[in-house]
Amino acid sequence: MFEATIRADRLADAVDAAGALVDECRLRVADDGLSIRAADPAVVAMVEVAIDADDFESYAADGEVIGVDLTRLADLAAVSDGDDLVRLRLDAERRVLAVEVGTLSYSLALIDPETVRKEPDLPELSPPAEATLSGAQLDRGIAAADMVADHLRLRVAEERDSLRIEAEGDTDDVTVELGAEDLIDFSPGEADSLYSLDYLKEMNRAIPGDASVTVEMGTEFLVRLAFEVPDAGPKVSYRLAPRITNA
Amino acid sequence: MFEATIRADRLADAVDAAGALVDECRLRVADDGLSIRAADPAVVAMVEVAIDADDFESYAADGEVIGVDLTRLADLAAVSDGDDLVRLRLDAERRVLAVEVGTLSYSLALIDPETVRKEPDLPELSPPAEATLSGAQLDRGIAAADMVADHLRLRVAEERDSLRIEAEGDTDDVTVELGAEDLIDFSPGEADSLYSLDYLKEMNRAIPGDASVTVEMGTEFLVRLAFEVPDAGPKVSYRLAPRITNA
Amino acid sequence: MFEATIRADRLADAVDAAGALVDECRLRVADDGLSIRAADPAVVAMVEVAIDADDFESYAADGEVIGVDLTRLADLAAVSDGDDLVRLRLDAERRVLAVEVGTLSYSLALIDPETVRKEPDLPELSPPAEATLSGAQLDRGIAAADMVADHLRLRVAEERDSLRIEAEGDTDDVTVELGAEDLIDFSPGEADSLYSLDYLKEMNRAIPGDASVTVEMGTEFLVRLAFEVPDAGPKVSYRLAPRITNA
Repeated sequence: MFEATIRADRLADAVDAAGALVDECRLRVADDGLSIRAADPAVVAMVEVAIDADDFESYAADGEVIGVDLTRLADLAAVSDGDDLVRLRLDAERRVLAVEVGTLSYSLALIDPETVRKEPDLPELSPPAEATLSGAQLDRGIAAADMVADHLRLRVAEERDSLRIEAEGDTDDVTVELGAEDLIDFSPGEADSLYSLDYLKEMNRAIPGDASVTVEMGTEFLVRLAFEVPDAGPKVSYRLAPRITNA
Repeated sequence: MFEATIRADRLADAVDAAGALVDECRLRVADDGLSIRAADPAVVAMVEVAIDADDFESYAADGEVIGVDLTRLADLAAVSDGDDLVRLRLDAERRVLAVEVGTLSYSLALIDPETVRKEPDLPELSPPAEATLSGAQLDRGIAAADMVADHLRLRVAEERDSLRIEAEGDTDDVTVELGAEDLIDFSPGEADSLYSLDYLKEMNRAIPGDASVTVEMGTEFLVRLAFEVPDAGPKVSYRLAPRITNA
Repeated sequence: MFEATIRADRLADAVDAAGALVDECRLRVADDGLSIRAADPAVVAMVEVAIDADDFESYAADGEVIGVDLTRLADLAAVSDGDDLVRLRLDAERRVLAVEVGTLSYSLALIDPETVRKEPDLPELSPPAEATLSGAQLDRGIAAADMVADHLRLRVAEERDSLRIEAEGDTDDVTVELGAEDLIDFSPGEADSLYSLDYLKEMNRAIPGDASVTVEMGTEFLVRLAFEVPDAGPKVSYRLAPRITNA
């Protein structure tokens, strides 16, 4: 059983966040809310999205796992206004998710959850360093790196007084250096890893400029970017495996 | 003889409405106003556009038929501001339509009206059902159907209490159900037809969201969508032949 | 030695103006300001851009000539806000231009100025006619000509009472006629030349609608379009060689 009502913009934010990495995924609808965990096809990146039961207008579920095509849900959100209410109801017999927005009724065929790529189990990691910055600052660092290279280096300065986003191109180099005064929060530690910009750009598209993004990092470390969409939006975290550095 | 002055935005609305189906057409300039009737190359759809003599700033004509390239008129409207006045003058000798907008003079070569595709004669049809809805609602119905299929079904519910826009995809279905309270006007009757979305999307582009669109419909019926562009804009009607249904 | 600070929007305006014709160029940094002179690859068009030392927030230079890739500088301006301050510093030893905007540091590899195409020497020309018009009017004339042809004719009317922008297409003709009352300034004289729209459209993209553009012209004459970006922006002039006319 699953039956819930949610604002269209909150649903869109959750769908976009997961859609940055995958086209289809499993929705888990537990007592306390809806969650998604998915890995991209190359299993280099992962996404976790959660919407608390409280952030729905109404919510009732008893632990189903539902396989859905996210592009269809994104299309539905696109024809709705942000404050439209979207009613979701699992019709287990017909294997469809019935979606209603105002006068529109959409019958979304479910995907067998068994056929959706499994997400890998993650070991518990304790990040050596952690920084919190605004989505706008992360966006600027990614755009800057993208001017010269196809990857960026994320590291804590030797002096432990700043977070550095660096990129080295064939001829040009770029650095964004964020001191403690530029960061919302900073717990420095040893951290130096290289990441693919292709993945970071996709993730970044789903990160609002006014969100606070917490970055957990280390040396050749599976980075974690965690944020909450402002105004009771979904909680999202991305993880991205490092590229092998030559340093 | 034809000599008239019109606001650029009204001319643009008329040109866009006809341009949804054809690139060239015949303008009939009678005593009481300008009109266009044209069928698309496949003769599946038709458009009629009329601008009353009163909706021109000045108007004098005596029944000429002028063949024009609509894309050129659309380009001219695009370099004008909406409230610019466009002066049109037929120069029958040189076979051009002289167009003036402020400091700009454009000499538009006419097309021999005989070479422009003839519109088919239409039998007088009495539509079994009729509904009036806003352009925005029609737009939403078309966008919803477009998510799952390349055609939509337009029908009056068995109970005669609503207009239904339905589309059936390979896996997903969508319905927009508009009750009497969602419609501006409703004269229900037997109606159930399938239409191509390619055509409807082109027509829809020319329909303002705040226009009232009257839909005349029936079973396997040549649908008619009639509207008036708000603020003394042109009167437009589209007709579209049904697709053969399998039902 | 070269070290200067400038608003990002002023730098962007200068880079865009030169970028209309070339991808790489020489920056001359003299006592009194920065200047660029460059010819396009076909040596049909030239651009001169100047930013006065006074329009920098701080400026110190002693006559260096620096070869730069303009697309990189345009990218840098694009990730900055208009009122961000951009600090430029020549590092002659490392052969880089160090660019800093807030927390971002960019190391731009210089190009050997000797490898950048030389601009031709221009004879001193005295234009037979001169008109000053708004960027918006020039834009409209170029857009109008572009509807029918790939070149435009710029001439002073026989009566010397107007500037005419004309284009003759295969079937249609267009004229924008600007009388003394439409022009900011007008010194009529003999002028009649044909120019390629490809070049004019590129130049036009860098001309603000609210700039006053002075056009120096003649018969089969190297036209000059000179303007100053409003609000202490760069001074720009374009020159464009005429096409051979058949008249």
